[in-house]
Amino acid sequence: MSDAAPPPDVLAGLAAIVGSSHVVTDPDLIAAHLVEPRGLYQGRALAMVRPVSTEQTARVVALCHDRRVPLVPQGGNTGLVGGHTPDSSGREIILSLQRMNRVREIDASANAMIAEAGVTLANAQAAARDADRLFPLSLASEGTCTIGGNLSTNAGGVAVIAYGTARDLVTGIEVVLADGRVMNGLSKLRKDNTGYDLKNLFIGAEGTLGIITAAALKLFPNPRSMATAFIGLADPAQALRLLEIARQFAGGGVTSFELIPRIGLDFVFAHMSGPRDPLGSRHRWYVLLEISSQMATGVDETMASMLHAALERGVIEDASIAASHEQRLAFWLLRESLSEVQGKEGGSIKHDVSVPVGAAPDFLARASEAVEAFMPGARVVSFGHLGDGNIHFNVSQPIGADRRAFLARWEAMNEVVHGVVAQFHGSISAEHGVGRLKRALLKRTKDPVALDVMRALKSTLDPRGILNPGKVL
Amino acid sequence: MSDAAPPPDVLAGLAAIVGSSHVVTDPDLIAAHLVEPRGLYQGRALAMVRPVSTEQTARVVALCHDRRVPLVPQGGNTGLVGGHTPDSSGREIILSLQRMNRVREIDASANAMIAEAGVTLANAQAAARDADRLFPLSLASEGTCTIGGNLSTNAGGVAVIAYGTARDLVTGIEVVLADGRVMNGLSKLRKDNTGYDLKNLFIGAEGTLGIITAAALKLFPNPRSMATAFIGLADPAQALRLLEIARQFAGGGVTSFELIPRIGLDFVFAHMSGPRDPLGSRHRWYVLLEISSQMATGVDETMASMLHAALERGVIEDASIAASHEQRLAFWLLRESLSEVQGKEGGSIKHDVSVPVGAAPDFLARASEAVEAFMPGARVVSFGHLGDGNIHFNVSQPIGADRRAFLARWEAMNEVVHGVVAQFHGSISAEHGVGRLKRALLKRTKDPVALDVMRALKSTLDPRGILNPGKVL
Repeated sequence: MSDAAPPPDVLAGLAAIVGSSHVVTDPDLIAAHLVEPRGLYQGRALAMVRPVSTEQTARVVALCHDRRVPLVPQGGNTGLVGGHTPDSSGREIILSLQRMNRVREIDASANAMIAEAGVTLANAQAAARDADRLFPLSLASEGTCTIGGNLSTNAGGVAVIAYGTARDLVTGIEVVLADGRVMNGLSKLRKDNTGYDLKNLFIGAEGTLGIITAAALKLFPNPRSMATAFIGLADPAQALRLLEIARQFAGGGVTSFELIPRIGLDFVFAHMSGPRDPLGSRHRWYVLLEISSQMATGVDETMASMLHAALERGVIEDASIAASHEQRLAFWLLRESLSEVQGKEGGSIKHDVSVPVGAAPDFLARASEAVEAFMPGARVVSFGHLGDGNIHFNVSQPIGADRRAFLARWEAMNEVVHGVVAQFHGSISAEHGVGRLKRALLKRTKDPVALDVMRALKSTLDPRGILNPGKVL
Repeated sequence: MSDAAPPPDVLAGLAAIVGSSHVVTDPDLIAAHLVEPRGLYQGRALAMVRPVSTEQTARVVALCHDRRVPLVPQGGNTGLVGGHTPDSSGREIILSLQRMNRVREIDASANAMIAEAGVTLANAQAAARDADRLFPLSLASEGTCTIGGNLSTNAGGVAVIAYGTARDLVTGIEVVLADGRVMNGLSKLRKDNTGYDLKNLFIGAEGTLGIITAAALKLFPNPRSMATAFIGLADPAQALRLLEIARQFAGGGVTSFELIPRIGLDFVFAHMSGPRDPLGSRHRWYVLLEISSQMATGVDETMASMLHAALERGVIEDASIAASHEQRLAFWLLRESLSEVQGKEGGSIKHDVSVPVGAAPDFLARASEAVEAFMPGARVVSFGHLGDGNIHFNVSQPIGADRRAFLARWEAMNEVVHGVVAQFHGSISAEHGVGRLKRALLKRTKDPVALDVMRALKSTLDPRGILNPGKVL
């Protein structure tokens, strides 16, 4: 795998810990783990090591610490910023947590679940459901992504508006430190003020400060009923008004609120044969709204009277309530296909940004103007989690433009969009993290004192720099 | 103020920064700041310095860093663990944030408020209310305690069940580091994954890692209606069943759920002339339940049908719904007088503990048995935030016992109660923090690797040890 001479004793040491079949060097078996899903980064690795337990992970890390071998932790390999892809040196070892896939405990009375890092998000959701509970984290890659990756990147998704990000769903974690010591913090407590909040230091640190091996996760009552509506309206400002009305009627029961532009639907209808427009006529913008309730009945009436009020106040133009589970899935398919169909319209330059919630409509208007001025004909496809102020502000190439030439302007386009983000004191990475993709950008945009503190924490917790080097900082 | 010779040039330097009238050394003016509210700790201080701005605070800290003068940050002086009281050396300077009392910004559209550290919690609540928003943190000392103290101790209170602790209500902070540099992290963003989560490191650190000078706080829609009930039931297990039913009917609208034992009411009626029993007959336990709604109407009906269901299922014995604002306040007075009236029943030994929510009834039974076995006649008065698993497990002296002899057994009683807490993997400080009171206890009960990480962070962020020395660690 590497031009550098592999240190065979390290590999032998790893094999002694995890078994030789779990120190993977076969190019065919390791290939898929060397490239990130969008193909932006292609790395190499000395090996991929697959521990099955915290104890094995601790010994692997201790050995690599001792020998100063850099480690790249990896879960489901679904991240979008190259945070889990090795560099091109061939010196790094991929530390795959996928075999640590046990749900250790479900404690329904404490509304808690202890899951290992390699449990896929879908399996964590299913385990909660089996106990008549809800684990609310939900995102497009949930069948593949893992709890360890979700926590290390502080994943967001489509239920943040009601339940928060991954960070908000954790009461405790177990972490292997850079020197191989295990910090046992698997607390199921909802309140605990005994000392510094260490868990949030490792959550969202993208594997650069420690290896999260397991987590105590919050569970919630499983909703008894749900209503889903697909709503047409004039613009994002009206969408925010709709959100306010929805909260008046349903309070914390508003569990999803996704903004979709007409161009996104046009792309879906152009490239997929199944989906149909849920509404009779065209609208400039849409909202996919979901309301959940702990009552078995009443949620349909709440949705209907809420939409009626919004229609009467001129906030929305039309709406369709899902009449069946199939129709609900059809609504969601429209939302979840948006990224994929953009790929069929040529190059797409991505931005995962956030602004203060109330500023989102102005941000969308101003950023769209800036893109049009920068590159006439470029097509803004901005969608996502409006209620969190988090917009996936993607730009598809002008019709007929050269894909490669368009993508060559990725960074210049970023400059334009992130410049507008800065005017609104927004974030250049709302939910995807920093990884390698936004490392240089972070250095330019983050408060310099905060960057200094981050560097000091990195030196303290990983003095030899073996944990995911070259990521974040 | 001190036996040690005061370094006059330090005081002169401080006076040059904040003005001489804000370097307080007059014994009469400083006296109240040298003792904590329960009288457990009485300290001395070189002076109390009162900066009015972040810039002044930064210069004060830089000077003290330079001269290695230890600082004790202080807000409203309401903490319960001695975390804000100087030691007896007379070498320390109290850094009072009370003059930093501006609400810098209210952004209703972003549901955000930027408040300085010295804003009292009540003033922060009022500022939110003026903008038709809710800042939900609520606790007994809210008229006096300050945002800086609330954040530094990760305060809890009576609305945690719906809105979380102080930590959950913050999107960003401004911090003066130990060397006087200012970290500007006053972000109003709901989602931001650009680097390590620094804010949660300083929140709950009790002033030992940096000085929080301002915070961006989350606001919520102001409830349009509210229903409050005082409910009699058999035991804490039934109370947890009631909580489940309440959530079925009101979901996230359950905004307070406080457990009260009969002995607590007996104390109130014995020592206060105003309050009356809201229910016709005696019950062993009570719950004060509040439901809030964004709808102007309907909440009374929800409360009534919920209570009806709970009565039918045999979960509760009786209930009274507040028919007026005055009656609501009367219900709350019963809850909020519990600490005070214990003082009139002789000595009281306090424990602020938490266990996993579902384990709370078993914990209460076992801990009460252990106390009775340890000291026959000792009267357990356990109350509080059952829905968070957080119990104020207080023990009043046996009737007729000697107060001083009883209080002399404080630590032995702690051992008994905390021993039961440990059996349930609970916390010995759910919401009050560590301060000086629980420092030795922390050393014995915390995961040793976590303690090592805490120490490493302290050395990194405060290498000269000038920030609140002798607290937490």
